[in-house]
Amino acid sequence: MKRLAIVLTIGLGLSGGLAWAAGHQPAPAPNGIELPKGYKDWRVIASSHRTDNNTLRVILGNDRAIEAARAGRTNPWPDGAILAKLVWKDRNDENWDAATVPGRFVHAEFMFKDAKKYRETGGWGFARWLGAEQKPYGEDADFVQECFGCHTPVESRDYVFTTPIELP
Amino acid sequence: MKRLAIVLTIGLGLSGGLAWAAGHQPAPAPNGIELPKGYKDWRVIASSHRTDNNTLRVILGNDRAIEAARAGRTNPWPDGAILAKLVWKDRNDENWDAATVPGRFVHAEFMFKDAKKYRETGGWGFARWLGAEQKPYGEDADFVQECFGCHTPVESRDYVFTTPIELP
Repeated sequence: MKRLAIVLTIGLGLSGGLAWAAGHQPAPAPNGIELPKGYKDWRVIASSHRTDNNTLRVILGNDRAIEAARAGRTNPWPDGAILAKLVWKDRNDENWDAATVPGRFVHAEFMFKDAKKYRETGGWGFARWLGAEQKPYGEDADFVQECFGCHTPVESRDYVFTTPIELP
Repeated sequence: MKRLAIVLTIGLGLSGGLAWAAGHQPAPAPNGIELPKGYKDWRVIASSHRTDNNTLRVILGNDRAIEAARAGRTNPWPDGAILAKLVWKDRNDENWDAATVPGRFVHAEFMFKDAKKYRETGGWGFARWLGAEQKPYGEDADFVQECFGCHTPVESRDYVFTTPIELP
């Protein structure tokens, strides 16, 4: 009985720990979209440097997006594809004068493809989490109009600015 | 018997196909280092933009490198860590004036950490494969002196220019 009690205690302790770890998930975006778990482990689709707001960006994709990108099936992207854009303020590299490298983390933003579910915004669900604290962006669900508005000029590219990298 | 023959034929056909795919491995570097299989699927450590040679770079790491980067154990990097730097000529994005994005693929270059094996070059083995055809860089094994010479100014950072990105 004592042994059972110990086993139960350890068991509950472990589930408590897991619950705590799982509790690290930030709040969903105002449109209900959840931050995809494990997005940091996704594979790379492209990078960019924007000099209008001095940011460096790395664009990652989930498995379905990577598969589509490598097969050249990106217009349209398939349902289930998710693109993640990770953004840092740029800074000069102290060891290489002419190099610009990532500085402070700014935000992670995502596009979720589902032609039917997100029909009203070009087949894409949008979400963004700000800073190290991963604060959801937007006051209410209408924030997506800002995202969609910015992506409308690239409607002919399935609303995606990113062109996947060439790699041998 | 006929069915067995068909099964055998399909079986041999498949292994032939796999052998062909495996045969895609490019020639080793002049110092004997082989291109790591599957490097395109490695996870991201950083990115950079160099305006002296107009290139955009994405730095990836194998599992051991990613583990070390996320734990902040990068001075020194652990034996077994491999860093991959993928390099493209930069180009202006036709849909966003102030954005620079990857253009033509230039090369993939690698640093392999093994403090003992590569003691003479700071504990790192160097290799580079050029262009879409993945031609090994260097006339003979001495090419590493060029790599090592360029990395010597960052000896105090374990010869690595890259600072891993911050990510929540």
